[in-house]
Amino acid sequence: MKISEGVEWAIHCCTLLANLPDEHRLPKSKLAAFFDLREHYLAKFMQKLSAAGIITSTRGVNGGYRLAKTSSNISVLSIINAIEGESYFFRCTEIRQCGPSAVDSNQYPKPCGIARTMWRAEKAWRNELSQTSLADLQLLGIQETPPEQVQKALYWFKNIMD
Amino acid sequence: MKISEGVEWAIHCCTLLANLPDEHRLPKSKLAAFFDLREHYLAKFMQKLSAAGIITSTRGVNGGYRLAKTSSNISVLSIINAIEGESYFFRCTEIRQCGPSAVDSNQYPKPCGIARTMWRAEKAWRNELSQTSLADLQLLGIQETPPEQVQKALYWFKNIMD
Repeated sequence: MKISEGVEWAIHCCTLLANLPDEHRLPKSKLAAFFDLREHYLAKFMQKLSAAGIITSTRGVNGGYRLAKTSSNISVLSIINAIEGESYFFRCTEIRQCGPSAVDSNQYPKPCGIARTMWRAEKAWRNELSQTSLADLQLLGIQETPPEQVQKALYWFKNIMD
Repeated sequence: MKISEGVEWAIHCCTLLANLPDEHRLPKSKLAAFFDLREHYLAKFMQKLSAAGIITSTRGVNGGYRLAKTSSNISVLSIINAIEGESYFFRCTEIRQCGPSAVDSNQYPKPCGIARTMWRAEKAWRNELSQTSLADLQLLGIQETPPEQVQKALYWFKNIMD
């Protein structure tokens, strides 16, 4: 079981966009360059974030990406859901209803206890991620990014914004 | 993101084995038949459960599978770990250390805050699954399996055990 790298990319990109000055937009090519990511592949994930209402994307000379709302109103879970979808990662195929002992399907009024157990754990996972906002990650980034990296990033941004 | 069907199969099979009378073993072919599963594919998952010390497997006329310990001493998490491995499903590829602002790797003493957030959620998932034992699932099965299915299963087992 593995979460797609798109989740890592999307969360990092959103955290970066959270630090953009108001009204600024970051072009696709620059966003990809900042993390040394494949631009075309990244664009697919950014489209998903846009479809989910987390970022907006505009074309043209001053076009690019920015957050669609403030970082405190974007949960980490919403970013993951945008990339991975909201379906459970445990899929119940109802094998209790297979084989020689199976009975008519109307005799199983409740979901299988095994599926319920798995889904309860997923709810704990989702709950944890719904309680962390992009603003929380933004703060961690401010506290923990090496000062030399902050300087290099500011210099890089200054150059591309000019 | 999807948990392999092997997890569903393994948990169901272990729950069935938990209901075997003492000292009985269930041959591979019968276990597969009970759930209408592909025997060869199921055997791969059972090998993993055996390697993890959850079941034992013996060959020969009275050979087959049985649990290696009592169901109350087997957590659902241990079954999942046996099938899926114990690695996190979020893999951090350290993209914070990529691109034009990256600095020397020794300037990142802590894991990335994004990875820590993802791993904290996985711990909540694991914690939930470590607190449910196979005995809990066995009890749910006893309470919720349709009575007609219990009768059919007992009849089927009686026939194969004779």
